[in-house]
Amino acid sequence: MNSSIVSFSLIVNMPMEIENYIFQQQQVVESALRKFVTEKSKKPRILHEAIDYCLFSGGKRLRPILCLAGAHTVCLKSDCALPLACAVECIHTYSLVHDDLPSMDNDDFRRGKPSLHKIYGEALAILTGDALLALAFEIASLCSPVGKNYPVSQMIWELARTAGSRALVGGQAADLEAEGKEIGLNQLRYIHCRKTAALITTSLRLGAMAADADKKTLNLITRYGRSLGLAFQIIDDILDVTQTTEVLGKSAGKDQKAQKATYPRIMGLEYSKKAAEFYTQKALCYASMLGEKGKLLSDLANFLLTRKK
Amino acid sequence: MNSSIVSFSLIVNMPMEIENYIFQQQQVVESALRKFVTEKSKKPRILHEAIDYCLFSGGKRLRPILCLAGAHTVCLKSDCALPLACAVECIHTYSLVHDDLPSMDNDDFRRGKPSLHKIYGEALAILTGDALLALAFEIASLCSPVGKNYPVSQMIWELARTAGSRALVGGQAADLEAEGKEIGLNQLRYIHCRKTAALITTSLRLGAMAADADKKTLNLITRYGRSLGLAFQIIDDILDVTQTTEVLGKSAGKDQKAQKATYPRIMGLEYSKKAAEFYTQKALCYASMLGEKGKLLSDLANFLLTRKK
Repeated sequence: MNSSIVSFSLIVNMPMEIENYIFQQQQVVESALRKFVTEKSKKPRILHEAIDYCLFSGGKRLRPILCLAGAHTVCLKSDCALPLACAVECIHTYSLVHDDLPSMDNDDFRRGKPSLHKIYGEALAILTGDALLALAFEIASLCSPVGKNYPVSQMIWELARTAGSRALVGGQAADLEAEGKEIGLNQLRYIHCRKTAALITTSLRLGAMAADADKKTLNLITRYGRSLGLAFQIIDDILDVTQTTEVLGKSAGKDQKAQKATYPRIMGLEYSKKAAEFYTQKALCYASMLGEKGKLLSDLANFLLTRKK
Repeated sequence: MNSSIVSFSLIVNMPMEIENYIFQQQQVVESALRKFVTEKSKKPRILHEAIDYCLFSGGKRLRPILCLAGAHTVCLKSDCALPLACAVECIHTYSLVHDDLPSMDNDDFRRGKPSLHKIYGEALAILTGDALLALAFEIASLCSPVGKNYPVSQMIWELARTAGSRALVGGQAADLEAEGKEIGLNQLRYIHCRKTAALITTSLRLGAMAADADKKTLNLITRYGRSLGLAFQIIDDILDVTQTTEVLGKSAGKDQKAQKATYPRIMGLEYSKKAAEFYTQKALCYASMLGEKGKLLSDLANFLLTRKK
């Protein structure tokens, strides 16, 4: 897969737009994911069809790109982080499939297409999510870090913690519990940290760890990730209010309908925009502390602040 | 946790009954599991309550015991396999929680108590299963194998493969697809291999790998596991027909009601009993090829053939 990797030297030496970087990394992730899920045996057929349906449905690949960017920030190549990048995408995709289920957020659309359970039914959607979660660890276990500071078992531990009851799943449980209730900003931040910022931070960290980051760099990347993750979720909440279903590719206004705990609902739209800017600035600040090698992360943060979907 | 481990020397030197061995290993697994899931923070509270509800509800702990027995067959102690033993129990428990859901097998009882979704609702039951699956890999990553032949990443890979679309999840998907249909013995065996025998085999293998088994031993333990797993599932199918809900702790006769693909349905009760005996004999044969150190596995196979629930 070496040929398709964009090296960091390319990024810093050429006036390459961040959009191009993102596009190229999307291709890298796409082809790596295909490689990991393509095997001779596709039995049971319908289950593997469902896995393909949700894994290759035009996702932005944000988390894997952040994982590769975490590696690029530390060293020239990101091959070492590719299995981890694919693993975080599998975890993200599984969480969307389960979140969309009727007993959860009950969403009929995802990425402009019917949600998985609308096509394959609830039982198979649950099983597909389960299979993707297991697949994440299967793929992650194939990672070959460039150094010895972070063994694969440690990265698996971190990935599992992030997917589990104290982060991703815990955040979704707290989010469901908060529906229709009056909650404060602290509780909202608690949910956002777990539901969104945790996997974004871990994506960046795993990439950096695979590339054998020193402690100081890893620390700054971690802080960058936490701020970026919060900014990302606030922007997501804002877009739910301000954009159409067509643009988003998922049901717009669904947070309001479900009386979800969101920034706009609790703090209003203007405050939410300021909060998104605040956390983006915070992320930019940590990126700048990385010096020249933090430029990629700065560009990514700026790009995400101005995204439209 | 050293003090609570029953060493293999104890087993071969004393006329210890297999029931005692099982009971003692159940205690070892119970206390290790408690240790792994007990942390200061229990937030979100309800999710961790649900995890406790299904993880400590009187399960037989068969798979973790087989994992420890796999280690005991190779070396004196099984500490090295304890995280893996707990991990396979988490995977088994998650699979029961999701299988019991209304959109899957729709079972209201498990281990003599209401199924998780009957108490906590569907959404939280799905999330609890997800959290348990992630927890399995978190715990497994903490394993310290005694040798260098099998790195933790390899064991994680095997565990993830077993949990995923080509084994456990694939088996459940094929099982649901077969409901109400006429299927042959080959397809039934395909389902049993994936739904049951795979995790039983992997449990044994992981224990043996953690204890640094040589290739020949690992190979025999693998073959033993496959036969034992098939025998176990056939006996499960038989008990569904012949036992009461009270004895089983889960709804008896539910396979028949759901027109599940089972041995008794396809081949009749008498043939099924013979098939269970056949696979148990096969397992015993592989155990005997291990010589004196295969005695524990022989005793376990004989015990499981005569189980009543």
